[in-house]
Amino acid sequence: MTTRDTAVKTLRWRNGRLEMIDQRFLPAMFEYVSYESAASVAKGIHSMVVRGAPAIGCAAAYGVALEALRQRGESKETFDRALNEAFEVLAASRPTAVNLFWALKRMRAAWEKIAAQPVGEIADALLAEAHEITAEDLRINMAMGGYGAALLNDGARVLTHCNAGALATAGHGTALGVIRSAVAAGKHISVIADETRPFLQGARLTAWEMVQENIPVTLITDNMAGFMMSRGEIDAVVVGTDRVAANGDVANKIGTYMVAVLAHRHGIPFYVACPLSTIDLNIADGSAIPIEERAAEEVLGFRDYQWAAKGVKVRNPSFDVTPAELVTGLITEKGVVLHPNRENIAALFR
Amino acid sequence: MTTRDTAVKTLRWRNGRLEMIDQRFLPAMFEYVSYESAASVAKGIHSMVVRGAPAIGCAAAYGVALEALRQRGESKETFDRALNEAFEVLAASRPTAVNLFWALKRMRAAWEKIAAQPVGEIADALLAEAHEITAEDLRINMAMGGYGAALLNDGARVLTHCNAGALATAGHGTALGVIRSAVAAGKHISVIADETRPFLQGARLTAWEMVQENIPVTLITDNMAGFMMSRGEIDAVVVGTDRVAANGDVANKIGTYMVAVLAHRHGIPFYVACPLSTIDLNIADGSAIPIEERAAEEVLGFRDYQWAAKGVKVRNPSFDVTPAELVTGLITEKGVVLHPNRENIAALFR
Repeated sequence: MTTRDTAVKTLRWRNGRLEMIDQRFLPAMFEYVSYESAASVAKGIHSMVVRGAPAIGCAAAYGVALEALRQRGESKETFDRALNEAFEVLAASRPTAVNLFWALKRMRAAWEKIAAQPVGEIADALLAEAHEITAEDLRINMAMGGYGAALLNDGARVLTHCNAGALATAGHGTALGVIRSAVAAGKHISVIADETRPFLQGARLTAWEMVQENIPVTLITDNMAGFMMSRGEIDAVVVGTDRVAANGDVANKIGTYMVAVLAHRHGIPFYVACPLSTIDLNIADGSAIPIEERAAEEVLGFRDYQWAAKGVKVRNPSFDVTPAELVTGLITEKGVVLHPNRENIAALFR
Repeated sequence: MTTRDTAVKTLRWRNGRLEMIDQRFLPAMFEYVSYESAASVAKGIHSMVVRGAPAIGCAAAYGVALEALRQRGESKETFDRALNEAFEVLAASRPTAVNLFWALKRMRAAWEKIAAQPVGEIADALLAEAHEITAEDLRINMAMGGYGAALLNDGARVLTHCNAGALATAGHGTALGVIRSAVAAGKHISVIADETRPFLQGARLTAWEMVQENIPVTLITDNMAGFMMSRGEIDAVVVGTDRVAANGDVANKIGTYMVAVLAHRHGIPFYVACPLSTIDLNIADGSAIPIEERAAEEVLGFRDYQWAAKGVKVRNPSFDVTPAELVTGLITEKGVVLHPNRENIAALFR
């Protein structure tokens, strides 16, 4: 085991508040933003202060806990109404990542179990549950890392898309957790990071995480992955995911599908690091996964720098769906599911 | 025929100088830069003031003519030495686009035909040849446009990558020339433009050209093409090319290969607008085409805005190779070559 997983604390609990690294400005600025209400956390999720499916789940859990703490002096009726509103506003913050809904469901179950008790006790219990969801995420990432590391050969050059790192989780990371665990096991791994337009999570976050830990990392634009594969410079692909359907179709950051199609053409294994909380058995296949479309400005430039021609229309789907047939394996905390399908995914939950 | 082709003059001859639109700053700034020597034109090509294979060919031809005019007062010996140096510096400006070498070869042939004549006459003849290469490029683009337009159905949604427009040529464009001709023929065409990192030719140049002419254009990041195809929102792909090998393998802007692989998977026709000057019969297949690697800064950000994490390594191949098997057809000024191969390409030159 390594202590690397504690190097970056995407979310932390300090003085009765949630603090999150503002990932919109990394790596130019490293700064924690403080949150005291569910509505402000929802805004932080929507504006991508925090992003990454598991981290969004943790943030939402803390959002509920914050609201409960904020309302602990109120009557039961007021408390209940405010808490129900908190669940609603958090659920509306981003549509694609299922971890958000999974975490909210878990928080609601924790609430319902003790709904008759005084509001102060409920608030304390909800905070404890948010802490546990977060601690559990780290444990799960370490477990996935172990299983995934075994899939990578010494010397492997691993392409990843977006950031499924410590910054996307409670620590260690999902896809980057696999890489961290392989490195910790003594393997020489080098990372090829897609920059991941429009939000540039690869250039800003994945590259930053790897540089911090001296894991060799090479940045490319998203349209270079095919070239690198055609030259034999990629040995494996490992990505994260925001939602996996019951049949193994994988929703992940826009561009993942293109990488999967290319990996398939070149016979390169394509792995998805996927905690069980990301699997949505209520969704039969990828066509039913809601795909968030974000604001045009993100595509017209980056932050305040707008370079595109005035008057052009824009599409900005934030995710795409990779069909299960292109997935070599799902790396979960219960082990690796090769060639995922309805049956072997259902078996994970038995 | 339309007059659209004269709307944008990428290169123009004014007062004994070559003027070129500085495409590095479009569309924020529209500005012509003036050139008086071969060395300065070579620098303009290398720094991408002018880009696009056919436009580079025209610029190189003018570069030779400029140097000849500049040396017209010199002795034959000095003139010859300066002109030979001009050919060398221009040939070294960019390695991938074959039009550059094609234009230089043509200029050298024009020179050799009258090498015994007074230097003043040679200079005049070389300028006339540069004018003719440029005028010919426009005629060729109009011819390609006509053949290509017939391939697009009314209502077609056409994806293009990079900018193979008026800005990449002497006018009308190759890939965008096909779209312009289809629109001029009364078809309703809408364009989906890949932004084309790192230089953003799609976001800046293709979008700008289309907006100017009220041709509907939607901008996407390069990693969204697969999503659009999977949703049935792309009917055809048309791109330009920098060099086509004798077997039909196509070198074009980085990312083209990924689009071709995806189009193939989705059964979407993939066309390459390709003047004969872009076909290099001396290259057996795509593996022998030299691929330019450019400076890291281009990938670390855009212009002065560097957003990537400090310390990350970078790859920056400027082109990739699409194998002939993925090309539905080459659109040339002699007609469309479906499923290009060694035989039907050779037949174009008989």
